Amino acid sequence: MIPAEIIKKKRNGQKLSESEIKFFIHDYMMGNVADYQMSAFLMATYFSGMDKKETLHLTNAMLHSGSVINFENKVSHYVDKHSTGGVGDKTSLIIAPIVAVCGLKVPMISGRGLGHTGGTLDKLESIPGFNVWFDLNSFKTLVNSVGACFIGQTKEICPADKKMYALRDVTATVESIPLICASIMSKKLAEGIDSLVLDVKTGSGAFMKTMEDSIRLARALIEVGKLSGKKMVAVISNMAQPLGYAVGNSLEVEECLDVLSGSGPEDLKNLSIELAAQMLLIGKKTKNIRAAKKLALNKITDGTAMNKFLEIIKYQGGDIARLPKARSQMDFRSSKSGYIQKLDAEKVGIASLTLGAGRLRTEDKIDPSCGILLHKKVGDSVVRGEVLATVYYNNDLKLKSSLELLNLAYVIGSKKVSRPKLVFKVLK
Amino acid sequence: MIPAEIIKKKRNGQKLSESEIKFFIHDYMMGNVADYQMSAFLMATYFSGMDKKETLHLTNAMLHSGSVINFENKVSHYVDKHSTGGVGDKTSLIIAPIVAVCGLKVPMISGRGLGHTGGTLDKLESIPGFNVWFDLNSFKTLVNSVGACFIGQTKEICPADKKMYALRDVTATVESIPLICASIMSKKLAEGIDSLVLDVKTGSGAFMKTMEDSIRLARALIEVGKLSGKKMVAVISNMAQPLGYAVGNSLEVEECLDVLSGSGPEDLKNLSIELAAQMLLIGKKTKNIRAAKKLALNKITDGTAMNKFLEIIKYQGGDIARLPKARSQMDFRSSKSGYIQKLDAEKVGIASLTLGAGRLRTEDKIDPSCGILLHKKVGDSVVRGEVLATVYYNNDLKLKSSLELLNLAYVIGSKKVSRPKLVFKVLK
Repeated sequence: MIPAEIIKKKRNGQKLSESEIKFFIHDYMMGNVADYQMSAFLMATYFSGMDKKETLHLTNAMLHSGSVINFENKVSHYVDKHSTGGVGDKTSLIIAPIVAVCGLKVPMISGRGLGHTGGTLDKLESIPGFNVWFDLNSFKTLVNSVGACFIGQTKEICPADKKMYALRDVTATVESIPLICASIMSKKLAEGIDSLVLDVKTGSGAFMKTMEDSIRLARALIEVGKLSGKKMVAVISNMAQPLGYAVGNSLEVEECLDVLSGSGPEDLKNLSIELAAQMLLIGKKTKNIRAAKKLALNKITDGTAMNKFLEIIKYQGGDIARLPKARSQMDFRSSKSGYIQKLDAEKVGIASLTLGAGRLRTEDKIDPSCGILLHKKVGDSVVRGEVLATVYYNNDLKLKSSLELLNLAYVIGSKKVSRPKLVFKVLK
Repeated sequence: MIPAEIIKKKRNGQKLSESEIKFFIHDYMMGNVADYQMSAFLMATYFSGMDKKETLHLTNAMLHSGSVINFENKVSHYVDKHSTGGVGDKTSLIIAPIVAVCGLKVPMISGRGLGHTGGTLDKLESIPGFNVWFDLNSFKTLVNSVGACFIGQTKEICPADKKMYALRDVTATVESIPLICASIMSKKLAEGIDSLVLDVKTGSGAFMKTMEDSIRLARALIEVGKLSGKKMVAVISNMAQPLGYAVGNSLEVEECLDVLSGSGPEDLKNLSIELAAQMLLIGKKTKNIRAAKKLALNKITDGTAMNKFLEIIKYQGGDIARLPKARSQMDFRSSKSGYIQKLDAEKVGIASLTLGAGRLRTEDKIDPSCGILLHKKVGDSVVRGEVLATVYYNNDLKLKSSLELLNLAYVIGSKKVSRPKLVFKVLK
């Protein structure tokens, strides 16, 4: 097979066979297909698309570029939750202990934040000592014994995805549903799971800005998962404004502790319960979603989910008592009275990133204690001079740019607005 | 400027500014834009296209990646002819001496054959000793003194085009009108010409298979040339069957000698006269095309064009008396009687390439004496057993594959067919 002929076929809108896709990815990893050929292929795929079979073949080719975890002697049902990413999106830290305490196993290979979105690994690493680099055997042991374990994408997991993602980032080939789908699913299939619950975010703070694109992505993910023999559910949830009040790593961990102790923001709690319940239902812990939600909520109320979270932290080497705090904080006050019409998630994300809570390039270092604590969200009323948000910072210069962005994020008007819907759809 | 943002802009179908295109090409040559970014850009351009301004900016950016020849003290009008390439297309060797003998200057930077098409440089190099590698100063001197000079694309001429073309070849990004246009025009503008006559081929043996695409390419070339201050004419000519009877390097040189001595195939002679006349008209040697054709023909009849060709060969170090001949020849006979309905130029080109007359990869070596001499072309009648073509070869194994291809190239039927039209359109 000739690489240029495969690129041409995709460019001309023809379907690629399993062997063509396998060859292309395999030879890319072997160095026989050059980066410049892969990037031309990725751009051709951006324009020509891929059908569900091609997307499956691409996912499998990427999956088998590395190790696939296999829980040989299954002790339970293995289920993960994957979010397409957003601002203040910290549900993994709440869900994993709830689901684990109910007896399901949660092997979570998580990612880092990039651009305005946060990443589970960065949040967990704000806990001093928290280790996300276990070898795959230790990971399996921890999942089986503790019930949940969070690790990063080690070099054994989907190396083709790592290499391709780095290339997509610098060649304007990120925004392609088959490519996004293969990237997500290859990593998730490597986890050795039986089922997967997807949280597909939609709105300004999400990767997919429109409902239509979010549903298309969800459908593509579900199809590939099902064709790979996995049980799949996708929740389409709102990411027009940040989830919860906390944006920034250690602030978000604190907020998770709040939710697990029975308090915390309603939206974060509700979405966590929804997603945990979908996992419990898919893992046959209850007969219907109502019962699943009740079970999940019980694990918060009785304190067992909190204990499980603390146990996970302990097994992964973290010391929650030493969670860092920013040296300074500054209240951001409203310049007018009215109702919050809009709170742009992407702008809040960038305001937090600007403080040092996120990274623009993968090599950037994070300041784990910085961030923003929102006090008002869409639908809330505010009086002139009232505090909209508190900024946690360690650097005065960064504070200034962050406040400017925050000012753009809030849209306040006289019209009374209702609280936005949180969950739009559940697709199976 | 960020390379990925420029790629994204083109991907999204937006227009690129002059400074964006300049930056992208300049930084590509500096090594700051990687090959994988250029190939993504080329694929995005394949899909999104470019308008005439963008194509002009791309042409100029490529042109100024290297030296631009400047005939400081112009002694006449400088004009070149460029063909988009075909099979048996040897008109340059006939035209250059005709036009030079009329007093115009012809600086020809020519190319090599690739795939089924032949290249002027390969044809000339079949003449023992013929040198196509002069430095630019010697080139200018020869153009001014002899009237015409043929050289290859030296490393000073459009290095960006060289680098991009090599990439396009292996990333399925060749077939894009703005990219083809910028590649051709950047090289032609580097020649220091005042005018350019284009021979845009159409049909099975051409790069552009349809009339519509050929006209689109011709229009794009004319626009870029005119916006660069050049006088432009494009002739759309037929490349459904080979031009003339000879296909293969030394065979084609011999056929050019035939035409210059007043004999040779009608179609080759007529197209050469047409193109030479367009050059004479554009260079104001005559008032109308009729007079220009007459003038061109006179230069053949009176032997001065032939003398000029021999003079060019001598100045470029060639020894026409030692033109090589293949060791063996084999007649290819018709298996039935009838009329030639079709003679597929691409298949004849590949049959000749198979013998060693062409190259599939730029590094392949050519056998200058191999080729095919056609005896029957579309519209001719043939009797079973009559010779259709003679194959000139040095290798029995290659002969076999070549004959098989030749057999597929000829379509013979009982229907009487007229000779195909040679020149379809002249665009200005």
